[in-house]
Amino acid sequence: MINQVINADTFGFIAAFLTTIAFLPQVIKTWRTKKAEDVSVVMLLTFIIGLLFWIVYAIKSNAFPVLIANIVTFIFNVTILILKLIYGKK
Amino acid sequence: MINQVINADTFGFIAAFLTTIAFLPQVIKTWRTKKAEDVSVVMLLTFIIGLLFWIVYAIKSNAFPVLIANIVTFIFNVTILILKLIYGKK
Repeated sequence: MINQVINADTFGFIAAFLTTIAFLPQVIKTWRTKKAEDVSVVMLLTFIIGLLFWIVYAIKSNAFPVLIANIVTFIFNVTILILKLIYGKK
Repeated sequence: MINQVINADTFGFIAAFLTTIAFLPQVIKTWRTKKAEDVSVVMLLTFIIGLLFWIVYAIKSNAFPVLIANIVTFIFNVTILILKLIYGKK
């Protein structure tokens, strides 16, 4: 089966790419609609703090791909949080 | 520094816990408010497909903590997607 000839790391790289890039559509949607009322601020804060722990983990483990993926995910989520806070004020 | 006596895995476990549990507040918020209009369906779908790749990666690598964290995150995100689709129909 093709599943067996593709090694685990390939799945890991695809996984990391998808779970990182996934937040870009949310950034674009929030930017365009100028609202994020239905997006949980508790989710964003918990997720962002979790990402900071991933970044520390990656630095301490010299896990460069983990570091890059989490920095990008962090930037997207901080952007969503900032947009939510800006548009929430209106 | 305290940062140096705590090993990388401890940061990894805290990170995995936070980035998993983070989606529970979104499930609760969406359930309570009965709306998720501002949540990007493209984000949810991309993230869910990414989580499936993480699950395959974890199975192939025998990475049990990664498997558990991603299964729980998958359940939360599928729940958010289903709730969004249900409430979007109204």
